Amino acid sequence: MCASVLRTPLTDALARRFRVVLASGSPRRKELVDRLGIEYEIIPSAFAEDLDKAQFATPRDYVLENATQKARDVYQRIKGGSARPLFVIGSDTVVVDASGAILEKPASRGDAAATLKSLSGKANTVHTGVCLIVDAAAAGQPLLSQAVESTEVVFGELDDDLVDAYVATGEPMDKAGSYAYQGMACFFVKEIRGDYYNVVGFPCARFHQMLLALHQQGAI
Amino acid sequence: MCASVLRTPLTDALARRFRVVLASGSPRRKELVDRLGIEYEIIPSAFAEDLDKAQFATPRDYVLENATQKARDVYQRIKGGSARPLFVIGSDTVVVDASGAILEKPASRGDAAATLKSLSGKANTVHTGVCLIVDAAAAGQPLLSQAVESTEVVFGELDDDLVDAYVATGEPMDKAGSYAYQGMACFFVKEIRGDYYNVVGFPCARFHQMLLALHQQGAI
Repeated sequence: MCASVLRTPLTDALARRFRVVLASGSPRRKELVDRLGIEYEIIPSAFAEDLDKAQFATPRDYVLENATQKARDVYQRIKGGSARPLFVIGSDTVVVDASGAILEKPASRGDAAATLKSLSGKANTVHTGVCLIVDAAAAGQPLLSQAVESTEVVFGELDDDLVDAYVATGEPMDKAGSYAYQGMACFFVKEIRGDYYNVVGFPCARFHQMLLALHQQGAI
Repeated sequence: MCASVLRTPLTDALARRFRVVLASGSPRRKELVDRLGIEYEIIPSAFAEDLDKAQFATPRDYVLENATQKARDVYQRIKGGSARPLFVIGSDTVVVDASGAILEKPASRGDAAATLKSLSGKANTVHTGVCLIVDAAAAGQPLLSQAVESTEVVFGELDDDLVDAYVATGEPMDKAGSYAYQGMACFFVKEIRGDYYNVVGFPCARFHQMLLALHQQGAI
């Protein structure tokens, strides 16, 4: 699944004009942003991610606010010392089960097994929020571009053997929802509806559309 | 997107009982079958893949017959010299555009660009046929297990810049349909409906279901 890079006049303009910063330490996001083939920095956000979920009408609102706070944190921290205009990418992903509950990373192997069993034979939804903070004009307020991409993920029926074997690999342990479709969940996710890369953690196609829209409004 | 391996009692039984052979030289299929973590051999089929598409009612029939002929070719060639029961995996993938035409690998860069433009803003469908030939009993005819998995792939609108940049990467040149969703097509495929791995070339979840069904009928 190796990938080279896709340089277009649009990504060239982005790299030429901006100091591009990914406000996330996620190796999966890095691997996807790398595909743009442009120079950029990784400065993980220090945002505490302690927002009260109950304050948000939907998981989409929640994940977008997280992405925005992450981008804002990094933007504020580096703005003063940056000679070039900034282009900061914030992103956050949540997994929501069929009942609407946001699934965290599992606390233990038993917790992971219980979550996997609860997802068996059902659909869950992965939402990724993206917030771009862009120094579009030489002076003045930066421009905010925001989006949420949602992908439905349908599990096949999981028997105990499969759950046990999957938990034993350790793969579920650092994953929200206790699974990685880019990993060995390939053997039990029956289908998805939406962007695969959104499930991995960064909605590449949506991001490219956001770049195009920024270009069309003269910001890139 | 690295993946470790998923050993279950089922894959253990498969590895213990059979000489497992993948009748395909595709590196993408190999990478996915590797995830089962079992020992297997790769013996690419010598089947000419020259079936007349016009003889088949649907692309699904065509791709399944290709998969079956690939598996049969390898099974026949190695059956005599094999001390252990065989488990041969044949697989074939086709991409079909919205008009129902099967898309081949592009003949030239111009051809790739024309195909990509024709797919812009529309859905195409990837069908993968899987045929397993299994020496289920000590003697007698081998058992055949067959399936076709289909995934819809929806392209965003592609402008000329994007098509030119993508063709310039060379990625489309050895791909049926002139794109690789596992590669840089991530930036312009808006969504899929079905199994992502089917688009890559091997429907992992369906394969796992086929293994389970074979187990339930006592063949594994």
